Amino acid sequence: MMEIKFIERKDLKEKPDMSTVKFGSQFTDYMLTASYDEANGWHDWRIEPYGPIQIAPTAVVLHYAQTVFEGLKAYSVDGEAVLFRPDQNFARLNRSLERMSMAKIDEVEALTALKELLKIEKDWIPTGEGQSLYIRPFVFGDDHTLGVHPSDTYKFMILLSPVGGLFSAGTMGTTKIYVEDKFVRAVRGGVGEAKTGGNYAASMKAQEVAEGLGYDQVLWLDGVEQKYLEEVGAMNIFFVKDGELYTPELNGSILPGVTRMSIIEFAKDAGYKVHEARIPLTDLEAGLKDGSVTEVFGAGTAAVVAPVGELNIHGNKYVVGDGNVGPVAQEIYTTLTGIQNGKVEDKFNWIVKVDE
Amino acid sequence: MMEIKFIERKDLKEKPDMSTVKFGSQFTDYMLTASYDEANGWHDWRIEPYGPIQIAPTAVVLHYAQTVFEGLKAYSVDGEAVLFRPDQNFARLNRSLERMSMAKIDEVEALTALKELLKIEKDWIPTGEGQSLYIRPFVFGDDHTLGVHPSDTYKFMILLSPVGGLFSAGTMGTTKIYVEDKFVRAVRGGVGEAKTGGNYAASMKAQEVAEGLGYDQVLWLDGVEQKYLEEVGAMNIFFVKDGELYTPELNGSILPGVTRMSIIEFAKDAGYKVHEARIPLTDLEAGLKDGSVTEVFGAGTAAVVAPVGELNIHGNKYVVGDGNVGPVAQEIYTTLTGIQNGKVEDKFNWIVKVDE
Repeated sequence: MMEIKFIERKDLKEKPDMSTVKFGSQFTDYMLTASYDEANGWHDWRIEPYGPIQIAPTAVVLHYAQTVFEGLKAYSVDGEAVLFRPDQNFARLNRSLERMSMAKIDEVEALTALKELLKIEKDWIPTGEGQSLYIRPFVFGDDHTLGVHPSDTYKFMILLSPVGGLFSAGTMGTTKIYVEDKFVRAVRGGVGEAKTGGNYAASMKAQEVAEGLGYDQVLWLDGVEQKYLEEVGAMNIFFVKDGELYTPELNGSILPGVTRMSIIEFAKDAGYKVHEARIPLTDLEAGLKDGSVTEVFGAGTAAVVAPVGELNIHGNKYVVGDGNVGPVAQEIYTTLTGIQNGKVEDKFNWIVKVDE
Repeated sequence: MMEIKFIERKDLKEKPDMSTVKFGSQFTDYMLTASYDEANGWHDWRIEPYGPIQIAPTAVVLHYAQTVFEGLKAYSVDGEAVLFRPDQNFARLNRSLERMSMAKIDEVEALTALKELLKIEKDWIPTGEGQSLYIRPFVFGDDHTLGVHPSDTYKFMILLSPVGGLFSAGTMGTTKIYVEDKFVRAVRGGVGEAKTGGNYAASMKAQEVAEGLGYDQVLWLDGVEQKYLEEVGAMNIFFVKDGELYTPELNGSILPGVTRMSIIEFAKDAGYKVHEARIPLTDLEAGLKDGSVTEVFGAGTAAVVAPVGELNIHGNKYVVGDGNVGPVAQEIYTTLTGIQNGKVEDKFNWIVKVDE
């Protein structure tokens, strides 16, 4: 196992007021860094004071966006730090690195490094209802020439950011979604299934337009025919029709979400019929019209479950169910967050303790 | 007009041996930087010693790839520094910035800043046959939070890199091209027409696979049907059929190249019939089979013109013409580079003098 150098800082920061903290705006005292080159592989692992980094102005990430990231969370359960399925995040990190022609990382070493960082930063995990410590591992190319080619050198970093729940207990809100029929996020044969920066840069204009129209998020359609459901904002999408769950199948242009996967596993176990399929927007629209679609929700690490109250499809506005949080979304949210904060039995073995 | 602060360095670098220099690997003594925030607009313009920059580990560019760039060249003509159509590059920079929801820049200020930098770095413009000073303006988001949204702050930079000609005089070589039918670079509704990092990151895997098969570059097809010509590598594509020029029309997923535009303007003026159209790959293939297509070439700032000697279309290999540089590519190359280095009259008013 690799050695991790610990560079201690003199003064620790004050912890933020968690009742007002904005997602991804506060960071802990330390961050993890490691470097890659062909001769040494991943080396120079450090836990060092959080702060600015030095980068060559020619770094591949600045010009050609060679970057991938992950997002997961640590929770405090009875004073102990736990993680939710971190193996899935590091496995996906490697699939993203492979797709973007970047140096892969040893998943065990990456998890070990994260655990070491969390042992030091344990006090930063907030303990309030729905609160957690958001974890941002990322890798970027920092090679020093301008040719368009994969970098020869990479940097791996992990940042930690305490976050509040998006919703307070029992008051999960709903979002308004705009179905995007002009802009496209990804297409088969592209990089849609990789968690790479370019997918997010490509989504910003549509998000801006949707917000201007009074919507919270965009529902993306497939890039080829612009007829099939893909994702909602930066989350996967589910809906409930006649009591059964539907979500777009993984087709190469959809991000394979860890929350998505967990919802499918939980729902099947709980007796729901789950359909992973190529789903025409017209099917969803017909179900909203005739009332057979009773719930629509996004699924992702940040919100866990984000119920949709209203959908705008080509200018037609549909209220989903009665516009409030539906029972299936509520059940999934309660169960997943319950497993994460130790209030529901972890029958799927999803929880990993930091101290083991 | 803005003020530019000059931070002088003590020791200047030694100039590299231009006969061996690799594209984008050597940089001059100074670089230009400017910062943007909403309150101050673009400000803090500096010409400072070339070197690493400091960046927040949360910078939007590192996670969500909010970055756009440009590429153009300065030439030395009778000891005087000149630029080729820089107004077109800064106009495109702004179109890219707009598409990526980034802060736009004043095109006149950007050109002024570039000229000031070039006045200081004039001695770095190499004077040998086919040599020039490659100019890399770029803008990236460096905001300090992890939410997926356009950055509130941006950095504009210009780097300068002396480059040799890709081909020595009279010995322009040909490249081997692999028609890509699995990976996709861009799709209508996406960001293909913006010069943004994600498009280049998305191209690296296909390039790697093509190189593994013995090819120099990839010919991209459209993302929707994978039937129509788009680009070749990071260049636009042209071919000559029955003595007439063909190039894919700008459709939103193709980069609007300055070299592409200049070739079209020159060729029309020189009496060629030029077709900008949606071109099925099958048309190109039929023309290669029956011999009516006599030349294929890429067009971009780095190579100016890059003749294609061989094309692999779905496993079928086609030699273009006699496999050597054709007369139309040669004429265009000679004229464009001639205008750039002052040997051919600039009848289109494309040349901008740095000292005026």
